[in-house]
Amino acid sequence: MSEFKIKSRIWIDAEDGMYLGEGRIALLCEIDKQGSISKAAKAMNMSYKKAWNLVDSMNSKGSEPLVIRKTGGAGGGGAELSETGRQAIQIYNEIKDTNQKHLADINKNIELK
Amino acid sequence: MSEFKIKSRIWIDAEDGMYLGEGRIALLCEIDKQGSISKAAKAMNMSYKKAWNLVDSMNSKGSEPLVIRKTGGAGGGGAELSETGRQAIQIYNEIKDTNQKHLADINKNIELK
Repeated sequence: MSEFKIKSRIWIDAEDGMYLGEGRIALLCEIDKQGSISKAAKAMNMSYKKAWNLVDSMNSKGSEPLVIRKTGGAGGGGAELSETGRQAIQIYNEIKDTNQKHLADINKNIELK
Repeated sequence: MSEFKIKSRIWIDAEDGMYLGEGRIALLCEIDKQGSISKAAKAMNMSYKKAWNLVDSMNSKGSEPLVIRKTGGAGGGGAELSETGRQAIQIYNEIKDTNQKHLADINKNIELK
């Protein structure tokens, strides 16, 4: 099957809808990098409203908040990932990598015309 | 991780774009059932143009056509799956099932908060 490639997308659902997906993980990583939800949204060319809604959704679905907002201070506050937020990124990426390896193994062995 | 569920979607790319995906496989199954591209399109609430474009894309990307059009006859012709078309459905579903089992196994073992 040299000319064909199995592709995949994974996401993690909570009982009441999506918890973690590709865009949400990218947002968490950007918040970690920027130290701010608004800066992360800007860097991703996403509205602040959308970014905040995604953070709010993740924070409400996880057993603990993934993003912690720091209010006040000279810079008008910021945001940082909690330990739960860091673990979410790590676990998501592990599942994604494992799954891609699994599919790559299948890819070698199937004969699609 | 009882309250979270890993979900996935797979598709198979050729070098020049998608070869098989969820919608394309559903269309192949419907063509097999209906014996006609137009009837399959209608059953799927899809335009004939779209259905034909999808069939055309699959037929051109596979090494052999997946759907064979039968022209003429009292019914104005019809369509049926080739052996390659049947194998495509089978292989796609096997990959999908294997992958879902793999993700279900991971699902049992990860601890997401």
